Amino acid sequence: MLYSSRLLENAVNELSRLPGIGKKTALRLALYLIRQDSMAVESFCQSILKMKNEIKRCTQCHNISDTEICDICGNLKRDKSMVCVVQDIRDVMAIENTGQYQGVYHVLGGIISPIEGIGPDDLTIISLIDKVTAGGIKEVIFALPATVEGDTTNFYLSRKLKESEVMISVIARGVAIGDDIEYADEITLGRSILNRVPFTSGP
Amino acid sequence: MLYSSRLLENAVNELSRLPGIGKKTALRLALYLIRQDSMAVESFCQSILKMKNEIKRCTQCHNISDTEICDICGNLKRDKSMVCVVQDIRDVMAIENTGQYQGVYHVLGGIISPIEGIGPDDLTIISLIDKVTAGGIKEVIFALPATVEGDTTNFYLSRKLKESEVMISVIARGVAIGDDIEYADEITLGRSILNRVPFTSGP
Repeated sequence: MLYSSRLLENAVNELSRLPGIGKKTALRLALYLIRQDSMAVESFCQSILKMKNEIKRCTQCHNISDTEICDICGNLKRDKSMVCVVQDIRDVMAIENTGQYQGVYHVLGGIISPIEGIGPDDLTIISLIDKVTAGGIKEVIFALPATVEGDTTNFYLSRKLKESEVMISVIARGVAIGDDIEYADEITLGRSILNRVPFTSGP
Repeated sequence: MLYSSRLLENAVNELSRLPGIGKKTALRLALYLIRQDSMAVESFCQSILKMKNEIKRCTQCHNISDTEICDICGNLKRDKSMVCVVQDIRDVMAIENTGQYQGVYHVLGGIISPIEGIGPDDLTIISLIDKVTAGGIKEVIFALPATVEGDTTNFYLSRKLKESEVMISVIARGVAIGDDIEYADEITLGRSILNRVPFTSGP
């Protein structure tokens, strides 16, 4: 692509480094930013720089936070004896949006994946083991992806947590609410039947 | 969406103002930026601010440029007697990439669209008329979109340029090279037949 301006070209190159943004989209974004007033672009860049420089990781659950202890870990109403292990902070948001969980979280920062070169030491596993060993935790809930890597991580964690005699559970997998049974894949439907629960008339 | 950090929330809100970027994509971009090192994020923001603050519009063709006169208008080898009228600087890039055009451009900055509230005065039409009236221009080529708005703009411009007796042409529309004739839409194929050109064995 021939750019009429080196300034534009630099900005397009930087924007196209973002995940899922190609050169054409980056050009569209750059031209959009040129059309905005200076104050708006200034505030756009300031919010990104401020986030990058000032954001912290909660020392207890490793979730992204503005403070040393995040709002969830610092909330006295949350049940600290229940820890939900997730891969990413987006999973925390998704579970929080359900409003169904009153325990706390532990963000692993990824899952064990030999192919991508991610081993147990790259994740916050030691911090989880230490937390459980320190006592006060009754249940650890695994909410990792149902993939080979997720299962490997579940298995690795369960082995490490065996001695602590904490209860270990895993989130239910099954046919999603609203999905037709005939279109569910065999593995999910099979799991749905095996892990059936007693019928109750309530929600 | 519940964010664990106000800094993250602000950055996501700013990112989601970009065209085509929703909240979920903005969150993915923000988390990506958090994972990058500070230098990379600094250079990302600097390139955008520098572009916004220092970029100029060529005083002759209104193309985006680092200098008062853009590289195309400043190039002595370009034929200044031929002016191609385009909507946007992206169209300049697209035509430049073909390597088939040796004239100069005139970027309108949009097309006449009463629905979007864009009238002739919002575009660089006066500057085009002045340029043609000043003399030295033999041909004006319209390369605007083949839409109602594009046709309206072509018509408006041709009326304004009538007195100057400059030659006015419009880019050819027809079946794209590589496209099957049976799948071409009727309007395009009809235009292809009406605007047929003498056969030559060369390219």
